[in-house]
Amino acid sequence: MNKRFVSVAVLAAAISTPTVAQMSVEDQIETRQAAYQFASWNMGKIKAQTVDGSAAFDQNQVAAAAKAIAAVANSGMSVLYSRDSANDRAENTRLKPNFFEEPMKVQEIAVSFVREANALQELAAAGDQAAIARQFAKVGETCKACHDNFRAK
Amino acid sequence: MNKRFVSVAVLAAAISTPTVAQMSVEDQIETRQAAYQFASWNMGKIKAQTVDGSAAFDQNQVAAAAKAIAAVANSGMSVLYSRDSANDRAENTRLKPNFFEEPMKVQEIAVSFVREANALQELAAAGDQAAIARQFAKVGETCKACHDNFRAK
Ligand code: HEC
Ligand code: HEC
Repeated sequence: MNKRFVSVAVLAAAISTPTVAQMSVEDQIETRQAAYQFASWNMGKIKAQTVDGSAAFDQNQVAAAAKAIAAVANSGMSVLYSRDSANDRAENTRLKPNFFEEPMKVQEIAVSFVREANALQELAAAGDQAAIARQFAKVGETCKACHDNFRAK
Repeated sequence: MNKRFVSVAVLAAAISTPTVAQMSVEDQIETRQAAYQFASWNMGKIKAQTVDGSAAFDQNQVAAAAKAIAAVANSGMSVLYSRDSANDRAENTRLKPNFFEEPMKVQEIAVSFVREANALQELAAAGDQAAIARQFAKVGETCKACHDNFRAK
């Protein structure tokens, strides 16, 4: 078993790869961008209602938004990443090729994203606004870690 | 209270409008397209695993996909629809202006989408493959109802 195979297997186990027909590179790119954009919209709602105070706190809305972020985190996005979909080979993407050279780092961030997003979902269901705000920041750190490492400017 | 106000209020109550700052028309369009695309990807996984049999049935994956679809349905997408974002006034969208002329029809479909997606989430958690396949079809009907009425070809 070569190193690459081991890393991919570990990554797949960590973020639950759905067994589906291989997608085109274009579909992978559009789908991962859509998933992150949907997550981002929901992060914005939680930020507005628990951090900035620019919108009234509504627990139902915050709980729904946290579920949406957790759903993205748990959706098995690893199938949306193929080597040919990085920005040295594909158009309309900011994915850097080093994503495929640092699988342990990817795995670590992906696992953190799942863990922190699941924790946010639980706290949002419980409804303590300050606790939600703190956990929102932890989720945001996992987004940022991925972008700093693997997303082009 | 004029008719328009009543309809909007009913619609808002039905699909839980988050209280956030008004988004730009471009952001509304991109975000709603992202949300539906994310839902569509997850519908495809359930179809492959429970209807077509083109991928092995994995209950964890199907349950996660159903959660993702329900998260979209419950995300308060009504804030992503403004009159100026229809395809007679905005670029890069297939939203037809009649969306804003038929609010009761929009509401009916949106409420069905939430109900059927929540039922799919419950059935997927329970794990009966045939029941999931049947409920998948019901969710698909609500997608189609909206597209037939409000999405341009
Ligand atoms: C495992 C890595 C990873 C995690 C975790 C991650 N992102 Fe990203 N994100 C990326 C990559 C890579 C791209 C570039 C995708 C592309 O252009 O193909 C991206 C793109 C985006 C985009 C732009 C989408 C578009 O339309 O082009 C947004 C917005 C975004 N991410 C927000 C978030 C938010 C918010 C979170 C956390 C809740 C998050 N991301 C978590 C890696 C990640
Ligand atoms: C309440 C109405 C409504 C419901 C429910 C709905 N859609 Fe749509 N859908 C639309 C509209 C309107 C558009 C066009 C959006 C635009 O172009 O601005 C659209 C666009 C799309 C797109 C194209 C997105 C893109 O990238 O341009 C896909 C894919 C899609 N829907 C799938 C689905 C699926 C799958 C479901 C159900 C699980 C669903 N939709 C439920 C109204 C709906």
